[in-house]
Amino acid sequence: MNSLNEITEFIKGRDNFVILTHIYPDGDTLGSAYALCRALRTLKKNANVLIHGDLADKYSYLEKDMKEQVFDCETVVTVDIASPSLMGDFREEYEDKIDVCIDHHAANDMNARMKYVDADAASNCENIYRLIELLDIEIDPALADCIYTGICTDTGCFKFTNVTPDTMRIAAKLMECGCRSAEINRVMFDTKSLARINIEREVLNTLRFYADNKIAVVYTTRDMEKRAGAVDQDLEGIAAIPRQIEGVCTGVTLKEKGDNYYRISVRTNGDHDASMICGKLGGGGHFAAAGCSVNGTLEEAIKAIVRACVEELGR
Amino acid sequence: MNSLNEITEFIKGRDNFVILTHIYPDGDTLGSAYALCRALRTLKKNANVLIHGDLADKYSYLEKDMKEQVFDCETVVTVDIASPSLMGDFREEYEDKIDVCIDHHAANDMNARMKYVDADAASNCENIYRLIELLDIEIDPALADCIYTGICTDTGCFKFTNVTPDTMRIAAKLMECGCRSAEINRVMFDTKSLARINIEREVLNTLRFYADNKIAVVYTTRDMEKRAGAVDQDLEGIAAIPRQIEGVCTGVTLKEKGDNYYRISVRTNGDHDASMICGKLGGGGHFAAAGCSVNGTLEEAIKAIVRACVEELGR
Repeated sequence: MNSLNEITEFIKGRDNFVILTHIYPDGDTLGSAYALCRALRTLKKNANVLIHGDLADKYSYLEKDMKEQVFDCETVVTVDIASPSLMGDFREEYEDKIDVCIDHHAANDMNARMKYVDADAASNCENIYRLIELLDIEIDPALADCIYTGICTDTGCFKFTNVTPDTMRIAAKLMECGCRSAEINRVMFDTKSLARINIEREVLNTLRFYADNKIAVVYTTRDMEKRAGAVDQDLEGIAAIPRQIEGVCTGVTLKEKGDNYYRISVRTNGDHDASMICGKLGGGGHFAAAGCSVNGTLEEAIKAIVRACVEELGR
Repeated sequence: MNSLNEITEFIKGRDNFVILTHIYPDGDTLGSAYALCRALRTLKKNANVLIHGDLADKYSYLEKDMKEQVFDCETVVTVDIASPSLMGDFREEYEDKIDVCIDHHAANDMNARMKYVDADAASNCENIYRLIELLDIEIDPALADCIYTGICTDTGCFKFTNVTPDTMRIAAKLMECGCRSAEINRVMFDTKSLARINIEREVLNTLRFYADNKIAVVYTTRDMEKRAGAVDQDLEGIAAIPRQIEGVCTGVTLKEKGDNYYRISVRTNGDHDASMICGKLGGGGHFAAAGCSVNGTLEEAIKAIVRACVEELGR
């Protein structure tokens, strides 16, 4: 582990940055990457962001007025990537060439020349904010928007248990820098695609309860997604639905990703450890939110994850 | 208008406080009242809160460990009450005896001996926080919970346009005082009764679009409510659903209230005037949120309100 000061000094001496984001990109990995990219360009350095797939429409403001630059990569930075398996398409080319890893996942197991992981940061964008402060860069509204995006999306708009006083104070500063916080909140938290509405309805139809209604399970299948016209981004946040139900301690969402292959998200109310539950099935994550993958039929996958949840409930 | 300093000095010289809240009590009037009451008792003064009806279960922590005190009222304070008409049951006895009015509604028209209205405050609890700072009272966790409650409920958990950097900084300080922010957020924003989940699913099944998908309509019937096991509080906020859909300018929600009788809520995205739409059918309200009632069958009611929406869209 390095200090943020060490990383700041290292970055100052380098150029030609490639910034890598994780698969299934979310607001925090994207916000971190575009914020850092903008900051580096402000320092007259070359920098590009690499993402998986196209940038979703709702995130398009992150790259506003930015053009891809042409240069030979000299410095590789990963943001919000906890594990090489989350590097996706970038793993083969970059896994052994990572210069700087900046993250906020306690279980980070990346190999990098320099590494800064602050697991107390609600979002990785808070680490990026501190780095940008140390780099002594003035935060303009576009940069503020990028940082704010990661903070608000990783905290459910300042709702989750991970929020700290620092989270709130950094958001206050970003608002003073001109970030369009209310507009970003509206897009992230108060706008749903029709496909999202359709898939929500389908998901609610799958609701089942276990363990005296303490465990709630929902799922999506590829057929359901097709009927709803839903793509990946329409499914974001679906995992929050079962845990919201009054009295539910553990909410489980299964997503059919292939033939007899399910990606599972677990959310807990803070009394039970989601990362322990998912760990039993080879996954991991945070205390209140974690994930794993299971091979088998839908019913087998449900049985396996419910068993893991029940074990954790009984601890 | 008085300064908060003047009000602080006035309060220091008084005792035996009755603190009044508005009808249909929300988190901000309740949080303001219980926070002020706790602060005054810390100063060894007598103080009680008066509310309309019973304190809802989800707010019960506000009055934790507090007992009603017995004293003759000397000082009357109103919190978050914008107008005498919102004093409800308390109007007759107290309207002409208000010593201090503390509020954050620009249109406040209360008569009071001393008055402090800060319309830039996202919540009245922010005014109460400043008053408590001036009274030089240490904020314990229970007091912090009360103040936080008003701030988070009046801002949609820091989501709405009314949030300021000060809002965020006050929340940061309250967290440092030990407020149970995440737990309060969970109760206020992330908990849905099973009946609510059921009625949401039913409501989504009624979704229809008009005018090139710019108008979205949903409805609830008494049968649907019965099937879902839903009571009035389960239906709170349902009217926000159709307007959240991407591309929708006007969201309409019809609620069957009797035989061939529908209560209609209209929400707009801010480009169209909901009060004009509802005005055509004898109702009214605000620019972005209004309501009216219609006699007729469900299809007749939908036809009437859609026609009114289309007219407003074309303006």
